Amino acid sequence: MSAWSEVDDTECPVARAQSVVGERWTVLVIRELFMGNSRFDDIQIQTGATPQMLAARLKKLEAAGLIERRPYSTRPLRHEYVLTEMGMDFYPVILALRAWGEKWCKPRKKGVAVRYIHIPCGKDPGLGTVCRSCGLELKRADLVSKITPDYAREREGRAAQAKSA
Amino acid sequence: MSAWSEVDDTECPVARAQSVVGERWTVLVIRELFMGNSRFDDIQIQTGATPQMLAARLKKLEAAGLIERRPYSTRPLRHEYVLTEMGMDFYPVILALRAWGEKWCKPRKKGVAVRYIHIPCGKDPGLGTVCRSCGLELKRADLVSKITPDYAREREGRAAQAKSA
Repeated sequence: MSAWSEVDDTECPVARAQSVVGERWTVLVIRELFMGNSRFDDIQIQTGATPQMLAARLKKLEAAGLIERRPYSTRPLRHEYVLTEMGMDFYPVILALRAWGEKWCKPRKKGVAVRYIHIPCGKDPGLGTVCRSCGLELKRADLVSKITPDYAREREGRAAQAKSA
Repeated sequence: MSAWSEVDDTECPVARAQSVVGERWTVLVIRELFMGNSRFDDIQIQTGATPQMLAARLKKLEAAGLIERRPYSTRPLRHEYVLTEMGMDFYPVILALRAWGEKWCKPRKKGVAVRYIHIPCGKDPGLGTVCRSCGLELKRADLVSKITPDYAREREGRAAQAKSA
């Protein structure tokens, strides 16, 4: 490692962002939080991370300021994880990865995994970070999502497998 | 690893995309290619990857279809790396990471690392994947970039350090 590999030493925002989230599991954890999956066990099931890996990623995301822990039960004390403003602001990256992944990382015959309706215009926003119908930049709060049957089956399969294990 | 961790088994485009690029050095290599830095030694200097790491990343990107090798010299035979259509399509992810990194991963007093002019409208497109002046989605070919002095110094410093090593 040369001296400048310390992230604080670079002006480049892409390098700085990657030092926080530049890792497969971390991005999948953020994906789950955007999907409304906020509890440790459920995130673990859907990302496939080991408990140790997930605990380390959540700790890092909390230290970096993307997520906060909130108690959802006091006896026993249990926390869920919620995105902060910094975390919510990461949504365009998830959308851009989604668009690229749908176009380039899936066989042509497969449909999209999640469909959206853009509340301001009532239409399908398509892929990308901007609504193809009305042109507004997409925000998570403006989208209603519907998981397609194949992806729903995949996620339910993981949950069922975890339950029976 | 559970069976579904094989990327081909997931419908999720984010997970699939991350299996190709979900790693800090890989994204920094793509950043360099978008900056017009196309040769092995120069990419190595600016990413800080070791030659072994960089060779492995380039091989993976080529196998995945994001980049191609092209000879730029025949005696001796030397190659440079260019983005394919699949690679060029990754640009919104880089822009989204840039926007998030500029906003959340740098001290407030630091300015942006690279400024752009959006050719279709002649204005600064701002941060993000859409031009804040004219509303068009940003494409690399429509942008003129100007590295700010601090970031230019940082990059020149790395090149000088490599030369003197």
